[in-house]
Amino acid sequence: MKLQLALDQISLDQAIEVVAETQDLIDIVEIGTPFIIKEGLAAVAAMKKRFTRITVVADLKIVDGGAYESRIAFESGADIVTVLAFAHDVTVREAVREAEKHDGSIMVDLLGIEDVTRGIARAEAIGARYVCLHTASDLTGLARDNLSGLEKAMAAARTSKIAVAGGITLETVEQILRRRPEILIVGGAIMKQRDKRGAALHFRRRIDQADREAG
Amino acid sequence: MKLQLALDQISLDQAIEVVAETQDLIDIVEIGTPFIIKEGLAAVAAMKKRFTRITVVADLKIVDGGAYESRIAFESGADIVTVLAFAHDVTVREAVREAEKHDGSIMVDLLGIEDVTRGIARAEAIGARYVCLHTASDLTGLARDNLSGLEKAMAAARTSKIAVAGGITLETVEQILRRRPEILIVGGAIMKQRDKRGAALHFRRRIDQADREAG
Repeated sequence: MKLQLALDQISLDQAIEVVAETQDLIDIVEIGTPFIIKEGLAAVAAMKKRFTRITVVADLKIVDGGAYESRIAFESGADIVTVLAFAHDVTVREAVREAEKHDGSIMVDLLGIEDVTRGIARAEAIGARYVCLHTASDLTGLARDNLSGLEKAMAAARTSKIAVAGGITLETVEQILRRRPEILIVGGAIMKQRDKRGAALHFRRRIDQADREAG
Repeated sequence: MKLQLALDQISLDQAIEVVAETQDLIDIVEIGTPFIIKEGLAAVAAMKKRFTRITVVADLKIVDGGAYESRIAFESGADIVTVLAFAHDVTVREAVREAEKHDGSIMVDLLGIEDVTRGIARAEAIGARYVCLHTASDLTGLARDNLSGLEKAMAAARTSKIAVAGGITLETVEQILRRRPEILIVGGAIMKQRDKRGAALHFRRRIDQADREAG
């Protein structure tokens, strides 16, 4: 399983600092939506230039302009670009086409989608490589348990790989790891700690241990 | 009625040039979603600094992080920030709260929402000042006639003002003007012309004439 570090409310300098500090522990770095809004795709380009080994996700949450928006993100160095599952099929399809041209991938974000099984089937039919089960950050305070959603997602996934995002902490990570999604997306539980490397290391160890146990 | 010029696939220099050229003809300039993705909120700040008189819309299409994302946009000088109607009530509410703090407004974007009447009622209940009836640019080629949607929107609006976006041309503008929305959002029909000022002038004249006819 992979660890994706989500960078949201952060400056570019801080972002580069925290990735430098944790790069051996994480697999994927996410330039989060508010980070892109603030800094533009220059943040993606700077991250990819500085850390060539790390997979970079541009969390655009595309909902229209699927071809153009994904193209400029891939051209800036993104490996994976997100599209909302809520977007029209045409938009998702255009984004998938751009991904293929740039040897990149689309992650379809199920944010706000009730029917996880149908959302995944649709994303796979269009050719998305990743699907993200995502509890909105504005709702994580409401502490909705999304484990049943994850079980549905794992059962539904055929050709896509499942990512999980939204309020994952060291307390909740075990039950998620047991369902074996491909990617764990962690933001606040690392970024809000003083010792970010220490927090990332905790997640890394739990993931590696779960991988060993699964053989 | 007001004319909003949508700037999407454009560099900051080009954007400033076209607004300089058309500023007496337009009421609102929109920093479109792909423009923000590319340049970040610096594009909003630069536009507001250069053209203090013009209302600036930051088309973030917020779907999560309602407080933070709208706050950084208002702090960059945006007068209006967009939130997807698809977003959770919590997200829209947080964005409206930020708007009130910054003496700005939220425009709720009905992109992808089937039930226009319900979408408007919900946006108004949360306190959104503007609601945008929006045909996705990825779908305008399918030439879906959205006039019945506009009629529903005009009938449903009580406290909010209606904006219309998506593939508006000089050919289709008359039937829209007859329904008297508050804002016409025009992108390609101006931006894809060699003579952008000429195209903007055509729209301005049609709008002013429709206003005169309505008394």
